Amino acid sequence: MRTRITSPVGSGNPEANKTGGTDYERIFNPKAIAIIGVSSEDGGAGFGSGILLSLKVMGFNGKIYPVNPKGGTFAGLDIYKSVEDIPEEIDLAVIAVAARFVPEVLEACRKKGAAGAEILSSGFTEFTTQEGTELEQEIKRIARSGIRVIGPNCFGIYCPKSGLTFLPNPDLSRETGPVAFLSQSGGMASDFASTGKWMGIRFSKMISFGNGADLRETELLQYLGDDPETQVIAMYAEGIEDGEGFFQAIKSVSREKPVIVYKGGLSMAGQRAVVSHTASMGGSRVIWPSVLKQANAVQVLSMKEMAEASLAFSFLPKKCFQGISVVGGGGALGVASCDAAESFGMEIPPFSPDLKMRIEAFLPKPGASGGNPIDVANPHVAPKALKEVLRLSAEDDRIDLQILISLLHHYKFRAKALGKPVAAVTPYRELADAIRELMQATGKPVVLVLQNAKRGPEDLDVVEMLGHARQVFLDHDIPVFDEILDAFRAIAHVNAYYGKRAKRMIET
Amino acid sequence: MRTRITSPVGSGNPEANKTGGTDYERIFNPKAIAIIGVSSEDGGAGFGSGILLSLKVMGFNGKIYPVNPKGGTFAGLDIYKSVEDIPEEIDLAVIAVAARFVPEVLEACRKKGAAGAEILSSGFTEFTTQEGTELEQEIKRIARSGIRVIGPNCFGIYCPKSGLTFLPNPDLSRETGPVAFLSQSGGMASDFASTGKWMGIRFSKMISFGNGADLRETELLQYLGDDPETQVIAMYAEGIEDGEGFFQAIKSVSREKPVIVYKGGLSMAGQRAVVSHTASMGGSRVIWPSVLKQANAVQVLSMKEMAEASLAFSFLPKKCFQGISVVGGGGALGVASCDAAESFGMEIPPFSPDLKMRIEAFLPKPGASGGNPIDVANPHVAPKALKEVLRLSAEDDRIDLQILISLLHHYKFRAKALGKPVAAVTPYRELADAIRELMQATGKPVVLVLQNAKRGPEDLDVVEMLGHARQVFLDHDIPVFDEILDAFRAIAHVNAYYGKRAKRMIET
Repeated sequence: MRTRITSPVGSGNPEANKTGGTDYERIFNPKAIAIIGVSSEDGGAGFGSGILLSLKVMGFNGKIYPVNPKGGTFAGLDIYKSVEDIPEEIDLAVIAVAARFVPEVLEACRKKGAAGAEILSSGFTEFTTQEGTELEQEIKRIARSGIRVIGPNCFGIYCPKSGLTFLPNPDLSRETGPVAFLSQSGGMASDFASTGKWMGIRFSKMISFGNGADLRETELLQYLGDDPETQVIAMYAEGIEDGEGFFQAIKSVSREKPVIVYKGGLSMAGQRAVVSHTASMGGSRVIWPSVLKQANAVQVLSMKEMAEASLAFSFLPKKCFQGISVVGGGGALGVASCDAAESFGMEIPPFSPDLKMRIEAFLPKPGASGGNPIDVANPHVAPKALKEVLRLSAEDDRIDLQILISLLHHYKFRAKALGKPVAAVTPYRELADAIRELMQATGKPVVLVLQNAKRGPEDLDVVEMLGHARQVFLDHDIPVFDEILDAFRAIAHVNAYYGKRAKRMIET
Repeated sequence: MRTRITSPVGSGNPEANKTGGTDYERIFNPKAIAIIGVSSEDGGAGFGSGILLSLKVMGFNGKIYPVNPKGGTFAGLDIYKSVEDIPEEIDLAVIAVAARFVPEVLEACRKKGAAGAEILSSGFTEFTTQEGTELEQEIKRIARSGIRVIGPNCFGIYCPKSGLTFLPNPDLSRETGPVAFLSQSGGMASDFASTGKWMGIRFSKMISFGNGADLRETELLQYLGDDPETQVIAMYAEGIEDGEGFFQAIKSVSREKPVIVYKGGLSMAGQRAVVSHTASMGGSRVIWPSVLKQANAVQVLSMKEMAEASLAFSFLPKKCFQGISVVGGGGALGVASCDAAESFGMEIPPFSPDLKMRIEAFLPKPGASGGNPIDVANPHVAPKALKEVLRLSAEDDRIDLQILISLLHHYKFRAKALGKPVAAVTPYRELADAIRELMQATGKPVVLVLQNAKRGPEDLDVVEMLGHARQVFLDHDIPVFDEILDAFRAIAHVNAYYGKRAKRMIET
């Protein structure tokens, strides 16, 4: 069973990526970009020089043309004195000059044939000055005349396929995957990209659009809805420009793909913090949840919850999971799992006495319990025994998904006793192999909870081992969560989305 | 300002620690213990040998007398053939023999003058066999004749002062502190003790009482209520023996000390998982929350939430915190903080234009915002500037507590650029010093949120640096949380408890 949703990378026809006249293919996968505002003198501290260095570290696929009226060289590249001087057509412009110069530069990029520009500079409507507001109006006017704008006041685009990256982040993954992300906040986008890297979330494209003078939530959502590389869409929204259009876009897109929405500023205090000059949907805490629910959006209340939901949608089959089996060690984990399952509308059906007995045959006596939840009693039960336990549990037709609560951090004691490194005695590779084989044999997904009670300076060996173990599990198509509640909550989002989508399909 | 509650370690008078005829002083701080069931042949794999090794690693203060009819030696100690053979009176017995031998051994320990015994063995009521039930009845009978029993089917006692530790855990802290913990689950107790170690929670004593044949929740709670070493009591409960007595005990103790209760098995499914042969309070999801609320208990829904609440109660002054200032980087963190504050009944009052301007004078331009929440805009703002920002924020009388959302993981970029280790360029020591000085100067506590978007194998240097940084902050009396929501939730528990306690004191 290959549960993970893989995205068709590099669809042959660039025309397929053009929506409403916008050439998104040239924006996300540019062959040539201009970076305006690179300084030969700032050592990479400025926005322009910083993004250039980031693109080099990422191994960006295209040509880079730095621009600065002063000329010079930076990072081995000649700096062009003007956009006009660049010897070929550019696909995308990255603009990092002082706000008052932005309109002029943007117009030059449009004339140079750029399909789009990301404007990293700040100093526009978010400054609430007349000058800032007028400059942003000017950007809008130029955009309408034939160049699409991301920003201003943003971190730009991260696209693993082409190697475009956010302003402050040269460390992101080049692996492409099913999740797209739209964000008004650049910090959120950059942190989500970094978090996704170690959590195993792979992205098709991420767009930090800041003030959203031109391209923003509704239009980008529609584009991602049609994008064959994107299977799951997540977004962070503060203010919304066109509430009705946005609602219709979510409603339409969510018929095909889950749309995960983290709305910042639901509280009165939060609305105040959102210094937004766009027409907002207002009355947030009351209106938003019901509107999003109607549209079958997946609502989350933090970046962490958004990331966990993205992971679950990426790794799990497209269906609902009602009956869950739980394999853990110690009665309290089983009790906590039952409480969590009920809170999130799932069941942990008890096994028949016969099945219970057959499961217990593989577990240590006394202490283990083979009912559901299953208590393996001992943290050192071998992966092959756990595999048999999971295989037997899957025999029960009521079981749709299995959760294994890992006790791997307990191997620290064994490592100490044997005088060996913890990574050498912890059988996480064997466990990952066993689980993958088991998933293939049974067709039922397994979700791993990788708790760690040992995170202090003297347990960094455990932290390091679990960091590597997590990557191995993810590579084996096993989604990993930190806590029991996190896992159930993420699965509940999958259930709610596919449950309502199926109901809608019957109704219409 | 010393916000941390320090516990008076080693009260001079052992009689003060005797409650209702039970000599708790000899149980928690024994001068001599017998471990019955140590084998010279199992290499430490058995319960008895395992606990003996754990006590040696912990540096247990007292004398240890191993016992086994076969005699021999283990870990450099002579094994006595019987309890009677031990040449002096014992204070505490640790019993790790097969269930059927437990009553006989317990009786011998009583005769030898032990004040208490922890019975690690399983095979009693939890087996739901007639033999198991009868054996546990026998234990109860012997206990009534003059020896207090912890267990059976438990992990025993962890007491940092004496060096007693739980069965599978030789790695716990010897630092004593204000938090006590009672648990039916041994796994929960051991994991909470390990978690507390790196989170900065220090314990007075922890008791895993398993089946609770003799000492259990109500009586232990009353004891801890009177214990001068304990300022905060946390507990994990599944079934309760005497609902009314337990409720009265919480009500009484919580007039003086917060009692944090994690009740496992609130759901119908969870109740099934709690295979309890004690009379339970029943109708859990409906009854428990309202009963606990009436008693002013602090209710939590996971071990993580329990640990975070314990941390907040340990570090924060005993009062309510209504007005909060938030210092973070990036607008989205401010928005998230405002949403969280409102959800948890706190306020983030906006500063006056004058104060805002004075704060902004210390922050990078453009981009920073000095209102409340404060956006420092740049992850590399120096600790001394952050200190000035916090000092100015504290001038506003409405501010009771400050939350600093750390951006330290961003120093990875700077370290790379400079070609230095991340620990060498990240100013966490300076930041900790600055915050402590600021807290002393203003009398207002600072809570740190230490998020980390970089946890993968290639960012283990960041994980390691943040692990050390956390310990430094904790040593500077600054509580640290992983996420914004976690911090607000923990503070909300403190507010709810002290708010209701103050109201009660007025009423009575």
